[in-house]
Amino acid sequence: MHTKKTINKSITDVIIITTGGTIEKTYDEFDGSLENRGTSIKNRILSKLRLPYTNIHVLPLLSKDSLYMDDTDRELICRTISSEAKKNAPIVVLHGTDTMADTAKYCFDELKALTIPVVFTGAMIPMGFEDTDATQNVTEALLSAKLLHPGFYISFHNQIFEVPFVHKNKEKRTFESIERID
Amino acid sequence: MHTKKTINKSITDVIIITTGGTIEKTYDEFDGSLENRGTSIKNRILSKLRLPYTNIHVLPLLSKDSLYMDDTDRELICRTISSEAKKNAPIVVLHGTDTMADTAKYCFDELKALTIPVVFTGAMIPMGFEDTDATQNVTEALLSAKLLHPGFYISFHNQIFEVPFVHKNKEKRTFESIERID
Amino acid sequence: MHTKKTINKSITDVIIITTGGTIEKTYDEFDGSLENRGTSIKNRILSKLRLPYTNIHVLPLLSKDSLYMDDTDRELICRTISSEAKKNAPIVVLHGTDTMADTAKYCFDELKALTIPVVFTGAMIPMGFEDTDATQNVTEALLSAKLLHPGFYISFHNQIFEVPFVHKNKEKRTFESIERID
Amino acid sequence: MHTKKTINKSITDVIIITTGGTIEKTYDEFDGSLENRGTSIKNRILSKLRLPYTNIHVLPLLSKDSLYMDDTDRELICRTISSEAKKNAPIVVLHGTDTMADTAKYCFDELKALTIPVVFTGAMIPMGFEDTDATQNVTEALLSAKLLHPGFYISFHNQIFEVPFVHKNKEKRTFESIERID
Repeated sequence: MHTKKTINKSITDVIIITTGGTIEKTYDEFDGSLENRGTSIKNRILSKLRLPYTNIHVLPLLSKDSLYMDDTDRELICRTISSEAKKNAPIVVLHGTDTMADTAKYCFDELKALTIPVVFTGAMIPMGFEDTDATQNVTEALLSAKLLHPGFYISFHNQIFEVPFVHKNKEKRTFESIERID
Repeated sequence: MHTKKTINKSITDVIIITTGGTIEKTYDEFDGSLENRGTSIKNRILSKLRLPYTNIHVLPLLSKDSLYMDDTDRELICRTISSEAKKNAPIVVLHGTDTMADTAKYCFDELKALTIPVVFTGAMIPMGFEDTDATQNVTEALLSAKLLHPGFYISFHNQIFEVPFVHKNKEKRTFESIERID
Repeated sequence: MHTKKTINKSITDVIIITTGGTIEKTYDEFDGSLENRGTSIKNRILSKLRLPYTNIHVLPLLSKDSLYMDDTDRELICRTISSEAKKNAPIVVLHGTDTMADTAKYCFDELKALTIPVVFTGAMIPMGFEDTDATQNVTEALLSAKLLHPGFYISFHNQIFEVPFVHKNKEKRTFESIERID
Repeated sequence: MHTKKTINKSITDVIIITTGGTIEKTYDEFDGSLENRGTSIKNRILSKLRLPYTNIHVLPLLSKDSLYMDDTDRELICRTISSEAKKNAPIVVLHGTDTMADTAKYCFDELKALTIPVVFTGAMIPMGFEDTDATQNVTEALLSAKLLHPGFYISFHNQIFEVPFVHKNKEKRTFESIERID
């Protein structure tokens, strides 16, 4: 896990691909549902951060609970990363936590010659809640996307995990490293 | 600017040295003053973050507006960093923004054989305000302290600056890189 | 709608009976559900208000979405109000909005000789959300419970409605007065 | 302390006269000062409340720490209340706490034939702080302005005080009733 050798003195572009997940669930006061219906990362998170050196491009791709994602969705995410990677800007992917490690591994297996860092993140509690961990996770993902070497990572709760050596620990309500078999 | 080669799979110790500055000013509703009077980083920031892999040690050193810091204060900060560095854990220094780059440079000049990353940060608006940038800056400083190569840095507004090539831009209300003379 | 003639110079007791509803739904980050499971009004709302002259007694009675309340529940709420009213302190009832007017009317029909004000309130968005109207509604219900004449009221969105001349307007996402037939 | 006999079924107009005080102090991140410089009640408080039946008119009159208010200021406030009262809408006055009771008594002595309720309020901690009591106090003042009989009141910390039987208790950081001499 290296970081780039030179400091980017000017503005850094970062692409955020949104796919849904708990982090993006919103409450509908009309019917009382808490569901994925588009992204509100700009209003809910980005507008509250100070990012004078970061030029963010939000690409809304999917709006799904990750429990319902299948390989068709993963293939779409993978192709989108591959296509966006040509812009040579680091990528952050917002994703549900339940199958985030699966999607990240799927992309890791498919995209071998990656020239940029791709950082997956999400949240245990949706943005919009007072106790959400979404703001923290997005803040950290944006910074790590600038610092890390090309490759796939999960950034969660102030920790960076290298894909594929990571899985969700449902009981601990966070991610954890899994052993590498060398 | 490299990061460490191996992932720290277990808990990471991080030392936070607090010296005051805008980030730590608190409001006294009895007399209406907004001043430095000790640190409240635990209640105000750390208690709201999820840090399952981070073991934080807060070391309250000074409680000063950085405009009133002199070389005696800087020498104290420098000696404390030098002493704490022996514990081999990354260090975050909370500091006022007005002379943060000066103190960081002072320490950079004094401590040449540093074996850990030392990340200075602060805020434009004190913690405790709804619009504070303190939570963002501390979140980023903690993560960058884990990722960065040994050396002195300022982490501010989702950007990492290498000391001594950094100064505050008062008009832009943030830090910025200054040119290296090679 | 009168208020009491003399100012209560000392501490005022207020009883809060909680029955569930949107206002009290909480998020479980383990299974992603947003449901009624007990009251958290003390931590989520009361602890954030300044109430130097108010002595609050929280009585957790039910924890139900009001769509699922039946006359057995209403009878229980009614009997509890009747019993608590003997303490001669104003009562606030937290209740789901969908059938709040029905329960309030049920109690109004049953308890004719009420000697205290009983103020129903709830919320369109649960406490715990950044955009919740729960804090506003509870703040207003507490104050109006002190000011109003004995009787049944719904307090919502800075407006007081007399029971039974009130119903929920689902489209407008608030309550509204209905005409009295004299 | 009576409330109006009939329910205002339609929209209620409320006039808010702002005069400064702690409640309206704002932080300037350029020079680090916390001072009165105009009102931000619309952005900071009113935009976060749900007021479907309240039509608020904000009248920015002064922007002063109430410790620096003199009788010229009080005369201005008094004349403004008198003039605005002709619109027959209840009035809320935002005012510093240190001399709020003095200003309220000054107006009470001058304006004997008041036909509307005038409710003074302020805060111990400015709006903009996470722990501010400004939102609570404004919410309560708006509601009490609708409910109370014509007269002068201070609304603070969920308690209504009749002018002139009220003063600030600096140690308790709130207002309290003083005995009436009948």
